[in-house]
Amino acid sequence: MLTRIDHVGIAVRDLERAVGFYRRTFGLTVVARETHEDQGVREAMLAVADEPAGASYVQLLEPLTPQTPVGRFLARHGEGVHHIGYGVEDVEAALAAIGAAGVRRIDERPRHGSMGASIAFLHPKDVGGVLTELVQAAPRR
Amino acid sequence: MLTRIDHVGIAVRDLERAVGFYRRTFGLTVVARETHEDQGVREAMLAVADEPAGASYVQLLEPLTPQTPVGRFLARHGEGVHHIGYGVEDVEAALAAIGAAGVRRIDERPRHGSMGASIAFLHPKDVGGVLTELVQAAPRR
Repeated sequence: MLTRIDHVGIAVRDLERAVGFYRRTFGLTVVARETHEDQGVREAMLAVADEPAGASYVQLLEPLTPQTPVGRFLARHGEGVHHIGYGVEDVEAALAAIGAAGVRRIDERPRHGSMGASIAFLHPKDVGGVLTELVQAAPRR
Repeated sequence: MLTRIDHVGIAVRDLERAVGFYRRTFGLTVVARETHEDQGVREAMLAVADEPAGASYVQLLEPLTPQTPVGRFLARHGEGVHHIGYGVEDVEAALAAIGAAGVRRIDERPRHGSMGASIAFLHPKDVGGVLTELVQAAPRR
């Protein structure tokens, strides 16, 4: 069902500072910047690996306000890994299979994610403490 | 410098239970089981993606005793993501470049990791709260 580790989502207090660090230290390059008002985050996607096996990214996430999921995460835990995103071929089919396995889903239906992907989150309490995201990448143009 | 997300290291209380969960829920298969006395862990590597871009794994980690790094992590944080491992071509060269960039390294020299890899950890305080591992995979036979 899972095709790759799509991304590691990392909560940061200062997006530009974190982008500069990952650029300088690891040589990563930014491939997208987006603001998701519905999720309350500004983010940057930095490419780690590319096709053909499927791209993998470091996703740096800065909360728009403290009263957002990532804002509350920072207040409780400080900076660090916020979630893991795995690639899937078909996010609706994966959600159905995982729901049938008894795992609670935060998103019952896919929604829009970074870079045109369809995404859905699973409940960390049912995935051993790991906030887990399923990512069906946007079709390549 | 980084070639892929090599693995996500996840701290678990019960390795067999966690392996069963990842198998059943996500269809992952175990490709290696190892005990590292020096690190105080029993672990299972579950394949997410394979070559050619480089393999990616979920690494499930159960502490051998509470007085180990993963044991202390579980006591403080509960189950969840413990560290992120990134692939590199040459772990010695990567360590040197990252040290020159001013990032503290837990391992000044590479040591033996899972599945014959050469690995080194960077200090999470210098990597935005993320315990970060560099992984030079073992040569293919």
